[in-house]
Amino acid sequence: MNREELLKPEERLDDLQRNGYKIIQHPSKFCFGMDAVLLSGFANVKPGESVLDLGTGTGIIPILLEAKTKGKKYVGLEIQEESADMATRSVQYNNLEEKVQIVHGDIKEASALFGKASFDVVTTNPPYMNDQHGIKNPNLPKAIARHEILCSLEDVIREASFVLRENGRFYMVHRPFRLVEIITWMTKYHLEPKRMQFVAPYVNKEPNMVLIEGLKGGRSRIKVEPILIVHKEPNVYTDEIYKIYGY
Amino acid sequence: MNREELLKPEERLDDLQRNGYKIIQHPSKFCFGMDAVLLSGFANVKPGESVLDLGTGTGIIPILLEAKTKGKKYVGLEIQEESADMATRSVQYNNLEEKVQIVHGDIKEASALFGKASFDVVTTNPPYMNDQHGIKNPNLPKAIARHEILCSLEDVIREASFVLRENGRFYMVHRPFRLVEIITWMTKYHLEPKRMQFVAPYVNKEPNMVLIEGLKGGRSRIKVEPILIVHKEPNVYTDEIYKIYGY
Repeated sequence: MNREELLKPEERLDDLQRNGYKIIQHPSKFCFGMDAVLLSGFANVKPGESVLDLGTGTGIIPILLEAKTKGKKYVGLEIQEESADMATRSVQYNNLEEKVQIVHGDIKEASALFGKASFDVVTTNPPYMNDQHGIKNPNLPKAIARHEILCSLEDVIREASFVLRENGRFYMVHRPFRLVEIITWMTKYHLEPKRMQFVAPYVNKEPNMVLIEGLKGGRSRIKVEPILIVHKEPNVYTDEIYKIYGY
Repeated sequence: MNREELLKPEERLDDLQRNGYKIIQHPSKFCFGMDAVLLSGFANVKPGESVLDLGTGTGIIPILLEAKTKGKKYVGLEIQEESADMATRSVQYNNLEEKVQIVHGDIKEASALFGKASFDVVTTNPPYMNDQHGIKNPNLPKAIARHEILCSLEDVIREASFVLRENGRFYMVHRPFRLVEIITWMTKYHLEPKRMQFVAPYVNKEPNMVLIEGLKGGRSRIKVEPILIVHKEPNVYTDEIYKIYGY
């Protein structure tokens, strides 16, 4: 079938600057952000490893990781049927069916769905806000992606830990203001935080993202990476950002 | 008595660039570092508040805080007799006996010594290393200041929490690699981490210090400040550092 037939009305096709891959997005629903791209640059997938992305949305993280790393398989789990369908069509568009699989299902049941100790790596760009944080988006698909409506931070971390094998690695992007909760849940579920990088829009501004790596069963000692600055000046990215984006 | 008579052999007098204050140090024992100065800039002491510095060494933190803030009293607790004596003489040298008091005693007994809920603010620049970290300094006074020989991170945080009143504030400088332990102990002892700042030698280098503020009984939400960069170029401090040093 013609690749263009994979697109539905109002959807658009965006270039990922990697291997000629493109991704299907629906502008009024949810489009991936810089957080997903930075997480795909921060995560380390070794040759032959299996990767599960919890709450994959449009499938951006498994598709970018397939382009950047030499893992064996990449699975994206997504609860929203429309997003999961869009992600599946993006996989087909790029002819990645052999390595990338999109599963429609609930993060809270990930370990029941896939089995315990079944992956080498888990990635996630989960909802950042809980009930105490800001106004919920009245557009439900966006709200589910941004607010902890269908799963909590604890659910994400617990299921990540369960599906990881011993010494498996966990990679998450989140907001710095929730760092204490993140570290508390990760240590509770034996995903020892081992590496962390803050991301700030400018060198003199507060960081607005944090990337964190956990090691299942690891010992306590964390490496804090040099800060990642996004903009050199307004509308000009730093060299580090251009490199992660693949320009 | 002549102020110069307060100095013992091999000791030297260093200018603090604040109110004309000077501090007595013994170069072959332990001299204060940039960490103490940055902590005195990070800590927030309101008019009339009482401050306890745990492991005060030369007394640098209470003396700098007396210069920079309008607290009612500043107490420094130090277990090493020689350091406590040096700190006491620095207090005398600067005529601060009415506001700054140096106590010779053990951090592990701070709440027994001073009583529970007896301070508004606790500061500390504790030993950074534990038995698993690096080689112990064969020079004992320096080793006690740098390694957790006489007190552990848990001891420091537990006693800080006990001597603080409800809603009292805790300020610590430490090494980023121990951040997970720091956050774990702080939350265990109800010193909720509320504000954090990383310090890096250069913008593109890993941070080598972290400043952290805890609120006794606070709710979980942390503000991560813009990163503090020390050097603009080799041997040239950034404006922020010159400002904290009072130049």
